[in-house]
Amino acid sequence: MGRWVGVDVGGTKVLAGLVADTGELLRSVRRSTPGRLVSAEVVEDTIVSAVTEVAGGEPVTAVGLAAAGFVDGSGGRVVFAPHLPWRGEDVRSRLSTRLDARVVLDNDATCAAHAEATYGAGRGMSSLLLVTLGTGIGGGLVLDGRVWRGDQGMAGEFGHMQVVPDGAPCECGRRGCWEQYSSGSALVRYARARLGTDPTVLTELCEGDPERLTGPMVTAAAEDGDLVARGAFTSVGRWLGVGLANLVAAFDPALIVVGGGVSVAGDRLLEPAREALGRSLVGAEHREVPPLVPAALGPEAGLIGAAALAMAARGGSVDPG
Amino acid sequence: MGRWVGVDVGGTKVLAGLVADTGELLRSVRRSTPGRLVSAEVVEDTIVSAVTEVAGGEPVTAVGLAAAGFVDGSGGRVVFAPHLPWRGEDVRSRLSTRLDARVVLDNDATCAAHAEATYGAGRGMSSLLLVTLGTGIGGGLVLDGRVWRGDQGMAGEFGHMQVVPDGAPCECGRRGCWEQYSSGSALVRYARARLGTDPTVLTELCEGDPERLTGPMVTAAAEDGDLVARGAFTSVGRWLGVGLANLVAAFDPALIVVGGGVSVAGDRLLEPAREALGRSLVGAEHREVPPLVPAALGPEAGLIGAAALAMAARGGSVDPG
Amino acid sequence: MGRWVGVDVGGTKVLAGLVADTGELLRSVRRSTPGRLVSAEVVEDTIVSAVTEVAGGEPVTAVGLAAAGFVDGSGGRVVFAPHLPWRGEDVRSRLSTRLDARVVLDNDATCAAHAEATYGAGRGMSSLLLVTLGTGIGGGLVLDGRVWRGDQGMAGEFGHMQVVPDGAPCECGRRGCWEQYSSGSALVRYARARLGTDPTVLTELCEGDPERLTGPMVTAAAEDGDLVARGAFTSVGRWLGVGLANLVAAFDPALIVVGGGVSVAGDRLLEPAREALGRSLVGAEHREVPPLVPAALGPEAGLIGAAALAMAARGGSVDPG
Amino acid sequence: MGRWVGVDVGGTKVLAGLVADTGELLRSVRRSTPGRLVSAEVVEDTIVSAVTEVAGGEPVTAVGLAAAGFVDGSGGRVVFAPHLPWRGEDVRSRLSTRLDARVVLDNDATCAAHAEATYGAGRGMSSLLLVTLGTGIGGGLVLDGRVWRGDQGMAGEFGHMQVVPDGAPCECGRRGCWEQYSSGSALVRYARARLGTDPTVLTELCEGDPERLTGPMVTAAAEDGDLVARGAFTSVGRWLGVGLANLVAAFDPALIVVGGGVSVAGDRLLEPAREALGRSLVGAEHREVPPLVPAALGPEAGLIGAAALAMAARGGSVDPG
Repeated sequence: MGRWVGVDVGGTKVLAGLVADTGELLRSVRRSTPGRLVSAEVVEDTIVSAVTEVAGGEPVTAVGLAAAGFVDGSGGRVVFAPHLPWRGEDVRSRLSTRLDARVVLDNDATCAAHAEATYGAGRGMSSLLLVTLGTGIGGGLVLDGRVWRGDQGMAGEFGHMQVVPDGAPCECGRRGCWEQYSSGSALVRYARARLGTDPTVLTELCEGDPERLTGPMVTAAAEDGDLVARGAFTSVGRWLGVGLANLVAAFDPALIVVGGGVSVAGDRLLEPAREALGRSLVGAEHREVPPLVPAALGPEAGLIGAAALAMAARGGSVDPG
Repeated sequence: MGRWVGVDVGGTKVLAGLVADTGELLRSVRRSTPGRLVSAEVVEDTIVSAVTEVAGGEPVTAVGLAAAGFVDGSGGRVVFAPHLPWRGEDVRSRLSTRLDARVVLDNDATCAAHAEATYGAGRGMSSLLLVTLGTGIGGGLVLDGRVWRGDQGMAGEFGHMQVVPDGAPCECGRRGCWEQYSSGSALVRYARARLGTDPTVLTELCEGDPERLTGPMVTAAAEDGDLVARGAFTSVGRWLGVGLANLVAAFDPALIVVGGGVSVAGDRLLEPAREALGRSLVGAEHREVPPLVPAALGPEAGLIGAAALAMAARGGSVDPG
Repeated sequence: MGRWVGVDVGGTKVLAGLVADTGELLRSVRRSTPGRLVSAEVVEDTIVSAVTEVAGGEPVTAVGLAAAGFVDGSGGRVVFAPHLPWRGEDVRSRLSTRLDARVVLDNDATCAAHAEATYGAGRGMSSLLLVTLGTGIGGGLVLDGRVWRGDQGMAGEFGHMQVVPDGAPCECGRRGCWEQYSSGSALVRYARARLGTDPTVLTELCEGDPERLTGPMVTAAAEDGDLVARGAFTSVGRWLGVGLANLVAAFDPALIVVGGGVSVAGDRLLEPAREALGRSLVGAEHREVPPLVPAALGPEAGLIGAAALAMAARGGSVDPG
Repeated sequence: MGRWVGVDVGGTKVLAGLVADTGELLRSVRRSTPGRLVSAEVVEDTIVSAVTEVAGGEPVTAVGLAAAGFVDGSGGRVVFAPHLPWRGEDVRSRLSTRLDARVVLDNDATCAAHAEATYGAGRGMSSLLLVTLGTGIGGGLVLDGRVWRGDQGMAGEFGHMQVVPDGAPCECGRRGCWEQYSSGSALVRYARARLGTDPTVLTELCEGDPERLTGPMVTAAAEDGDLVARGAFTSVGRWLGVGLANLVAAFDPALIVVGGGVSVAGDRLLEPAREALGRSLVGAEHREVPPLVPAALGPEAGLIGAAALAMAARGGSVDPG
């Protein structure tokens, strides 16, 4: 038995949770950070304070950090993270000292994939593909029961697979990236383009200003039966299925798990995705198309997975194997 | 020490080889089979005769079969193979009895990936992506030193990843599959479309009949400096790089190996592929783009890999681990 | 008053008709020709014999020829026609002598556009766009009441406008041409790709052989409610609308007329086309989307138009103005 | 003889010129207007003041107005113009009274096409296609010596022809419009995407802020040999040629004229366009590809064309015929 804390460190928030050996989230605290311009000190102070609070002042056995960035092979440093202030510092050592606990550090999507495979929708499956739809697309691959991080720790960058040559321009400087067609941003863009021309409750929700339109507005309007909002989910869902068909052709996972904020829409998103997957997957008539299910752990998947990696690292290895 | 034989069983030929513990191919024999309409008996007779000949009449420790089709999880049966007569029979048992030797059976691209990882271009790499360009695109993924077969043994179906929505129609009934743009068939199709309009030596090589044009003609003409043939390789190479960028984004392998008949063109194919990969891969400026190298083992990779799997299966496990 | 005969000269048939001043077709005869390898003599003999028969042995005032090829500016010669034996001979003079009548010669799609504008679906409209869906896509533009032939007589080659970059390969050697997505061939290709996998009466109609599948089979099956056949029309119709939106953006015609063999399916084709046109046309909310109607004159439109051009040429000008 | 004034009325400027019977621009004045929120009164006051000044206080025979918007069939009202304050008022009557002169009103691209056909690059040609590359793509068609305005005055909306299905999102709410790939905006977008990753003088020119990057900066940098800027012109030029091939296939003009701000780059833009046109145009090997030439009249084409239409309207008809 031990006291395990997982922490999800994003660009504007720190989310810390006390996690039981069973993966259960016992309690959590959420802190906002001032965003992109924050210093490493402020982020680390916020982490220490959140961990201390969630642990109720008790000593902690180990802390797992899920960071929205690329982590080096040793698991000590964040080497590249557009929304975090770290640029290669030895975060693990610094925080280990300040927290007086063992610290493990990994990419947030990797942590979420590990959590879903261990405690969530993929429990008992030997392989799965996790795709998370937020502003963009992230995710992870679990193969033979372990997260595949890639040779440089960069596996799972699904959002920038090209699905349309000469397609929509992406912030990455390329064109036609999958996340331009299937993500929270794609949902909003679809709806925005119809604001002036199609009748929709979204015009009121955003007070006539397309710039104010958000993903949750589209989700709410779809729930209420708004046709434009439902069309947005159908479009995003179809493209989800098209892209998943490519990943299934390459990896043949036993299960596909869809998480992230957009996935709260459930079958409104997943049904068109299943249809498109069945239509787009080669040999779908000679094989079982892997089940496409919603993530089970919600927005806490990252911190739960980080805590689980911390538990697993007891014996020195970073991975539970 | 043992006597290991690998056999590559394709739609129109059986290629058997005696393979040393070091992976060296000691000798080989090639037999043609009458093609698609052949019976299982004829194929099995051909295998037995080829194995007996290549073994010089001596007893054989184990035989590895690399089959151009999907093999079931137990490794005993070919469940689906468009160009082979087997439809689920227990091939492994039957041939084991007839050959009086242990027999292992696996998909040919899986065998080739195993061979390149063990003895070929990927020796010593913990992960690699093998892509083979023949009539279509096949391949395999090696992760943590082992071939990843997928949950249903169907991983590595790269050729049917969609790269162009509404693109070129594919024999699989879908549109825009990668192998319509990057394969031996794509090479020939590119050249055919220019036969009437651009000056090219290919017009003579195919005696004015576009139907007679073959991949090796295009390869030879490119070697001689023919501009249409070179254009074909540039086009196929670029699309190779574009598709590889998607696989690298998802999977982040340490190495990319390109095999298959088209790859004999070497840098004529690989240079445009490297350029396109560098341009298309997300974050190429923040990471090392994995090296893109030609396969080392040539058309014998499949049988060498099958023999290696047979060696590795000594202790009961199908995989050397 | 006069006796006017129109003749439609295609790759495998000659269709001649006696046409009243009102455009009414009084009677017609059809002759098969032996196809691509036929000589100019055979085609001209067939024309003379068909004209003589349809005229009932009476003298003819003028004959209009609608040819499936490009006609030079003087209206005397067919300069390029893949399916006809003429390569620049002075057809008009030769036939004028043999028929002892004035002869005018024009492209068949131009003739059909003229006929639809004068006697058919576009009567009274100052401008229209005719699109004919047969094996490929042909058509014509009527502007200010006259067919626009183009500077080199090559206007109206709509079928080879590119609608999908890197799209389906076309016989013309390019990719993504409109007629690969919206034509009789596209209809058949759509259905063929589903023969093995979706339940459809087409499997019986073609006796299990995809090569035997024809457009009329798909039309008949759609009529009977077959889902694959209906899907084929929906797909071809949508692409029709997408391409038409481009032409309307450029030309802003008062009317769109759809003819050719595929158009016998009526609203099964035109409804999805109208929907796609409304969705794809820029400023559709600030303008009237031009009506999309079926051609009125059927397969005789070409010969009727040729006869009408012959009438109009009375005073020397080839065009009624 | 008469005194003719042409006025180009755009979203942020009024450009008036005194034009000789020969089309020569004798003198011009330019006035800025406060932009989108300006009232109709302010715009009309500016027009009156500019006309008066350019006419040197002398009486004027007729004034031609080239407006950046759709003009109704009677030529009296601007019915839709995103950047102008008019919404259907009888502008022609009001200005005719205030200026004490005959006034004609037409769309600015129509005026420019008329000017190029009458006095510019297309003098003596019976047909031409004018494409202007500014922020977007505009243009006009000249047939039989007259501008084709379309049934509703909306012909020439080339910028929103779809060239990439599922392509780059456009302000019009659709995707893949031509002007997203070939225009001043496309030039800037291409360059912006490379600012962080490729070495380019543009980084300095825009002081490190991609939002400050403008088309003229890209033009200047290309002139200086900057590779990113030259790549931008090559890309925009190629897409120009691809789209032109579609228009030539449909319309077969004798000449293509390219105008607008981007066209000042000359062959840097036009050479890749010519190449792509030759490659993309169906039957290019059996026809003459129409010459692709720069516009001759520069930014004054609109006002010169408006003045020419005013001259031509002497006898009552709006068009010189």
